[in-house]
Amino acid sequence: MSDLVRLSLSLEKPLLDQLEMLVKRSGYTNRSEFVRDMIRERLVQREWDEDREVVGAITLVYDHHVSGLSEKLTDEQHHHHRVILTTTHVHLDKSLCVEMILVRGRASEIAALAGRLRQYKGVLHAGLSTSTTGAHIK
Amino acid sequence: MSDLVRLSLSLEKPLLDQLEMLVKRSGYTNRSEFVRDMIRERLVQREWDEDREVVGAITLVYDHHVSGLSEKLTDEQHHHHRVILTTTHVHLDKSLCVEMILVRGRASEIAALAGRLRQYKGVLHAGLSTSTTGAHIK
Amino acid sequence: MSDLVRLSLSLEKPLLDQLEMLVKRSGYTNRSEFVRDMIRERLVQREWDEDREVVGAITLVYDHHVSGLSEKLTDEQHHHHRVILTTTHVHLDKSLCVEMILVRGRASEIAALAGRLRQYKGVLHAGLSTSTTGAHIK
Amino acid sequence: MSDLVRLSLSLEKPLLDQLEMLVKRSGYTNRSEFVRDMIRERLVQREWDEDREVVGAITLVYDHHVSGLSEKLTDEQHHHHRVILTTTHVHLDKSLCVEMILVRGRASEIAALAGRLRQYKGVLHAGLSTSTTGAHIK
Repeated sequence: MSDLVRLSLSLEKPLLDQLEMLVKRSGYTNRSEFVRDMIRERLVQREWDEDREVVGAITLVYDHHVSGLSEKLTDEQHHHHRVILTTTHVHLDKSLCVEMILVRGRASEIAALAGRLRQYKGVLHAGLSTSTTGAHIK
Repeated sequence: MSDLVRLSLSLEKPLLDQLEMLVKRSGYTNRSEFVRDMIRERLVQREWDEDREVVGAITLVYDHHVSGLSEKLTDEQHHHHRVILTTTHVHLDKSLCVEMILVRGRASEIAALAGRLRQYKGVLHAGLSTSTTGAHIK
Repeated sequence: MSDLVRLSLSLEKPLLDQLEMLVKRSGYTNRSEFVRDMIRERLVQREWDEDREVVGAITLVYDHHVSGLSEKLTDEQHHHHRVILTTTHVHLDKSLCVEMILVRGRASEIAALAGRLRQYKGVLHAGLSTSTTGAHIK
Repeated sequence: MSDLVRLSLSLEKPLLDQLEMLVKRSGYTNRSEFVRDMIRERLVQREWDEDREVVGAITLVYDHHVSGLSEKLTDEQHHHHRVILTTTHVHLDKSLCVEMILVRGRASEIAALAGRLRQYKGVLHAGLSTSTTGAHIK
């Protein structure tokens, strides 16, 4: 953690009251931490918009009974091993699996990988969580 | 405008530098105004999530050559005259029109109205801009 | 309207049932129109992603008592008169106004204009509805 | 996988051409699979909107040097062990970690958990990927 500095802002009294309400309702105990998180949220969004190096999680839900699907998904992941940090596999029910793939790389490459995995027949859903390496938002 | 009060926050030095960058890149000349706008953005989002009274703009793009469509859209709008403040009509080209409908009412009612207008055959697109009456974010 | 052609697709029976449910719940009477609207939604999103010529509505909520604000907003709009089709003004209460600005131009230019209008002190919110000229989704 | 049935739709010829373009550009080899994925996307969104049982991945980026943070995050996760399927931990650099938490439960409970984890001092970002148990979209 870096050293803390003070930031002083002016705002309308009713807006300050509304901010207090937001902080409380969001479960924060600390006003500063709430504002810091708003800033960080913008920074992460910016990293994805500007196609910087980011971190993300791809969530794949698929039917492992579909012939050849597991092999194809594994192959596709191996072609992108450079951006894949780790893969976790969980059995959801008799036929469905969820695979959670932690990725680190350029935003466009990660989005493209999620897109490619989604298109296989038998993949019911591919979700993408957009996060950060943290390098620029500490 | 209400009177201004001071808000003092602590944050990491690198995060402050990143905030300065965001302020500049977003074209703001004023750090306080940037943070105020982040707070207001959250408040407006909350108004929509909590189904409060909000303001919005519905944008309809449609083909006025489709038989009976203009009448149906006008009828539908009259059924919801209570939430419609004003409608502006512009001719986009020989066949297409855009109608911009300014609405004020409960978020769910406005979303439902946009949904109903979207489903008419000949309507190519219905967009919804989510805004605020400003009553709670001054 | 263009002539209609047939599109034949294969899908799992349970997914077809779910589609029927979606169509009904969304208030559509027509399955084809529902699918057409899903396709158009993607196309409009693509137009904005690819910075094509689009249509949008900017919704500004502001306090007209803030000294000089109306003039500044009008000035800013005049600098972008090329992309502004029309502006509608409504009085929300004693101090607040909403201005709904219909715009047509490159997506990035419209987003930048919304950003610039948002930053003026006294502007409480700027919303943007993303729509289409309809040229490519008929 | 369930048996496939036929779905026949009517649409305008230019819209069909645009659909073909979308299918190709999105890397799909199969028009039916593309439309099925659009339908599934809507269904998953609906599951989250209606607070149904869903699957998600929470991605946490945090500084493990912040005193007591790892313990707090582990504690918080244990309080919600019922919805947490598995957690994967990766070291991003000397000080930063990313934790990817696979969750299954009611949408509101998962969103609340992500919100609680986000607020700890030292957590730089909490992302949430919204996915599905697949139970209703097969």
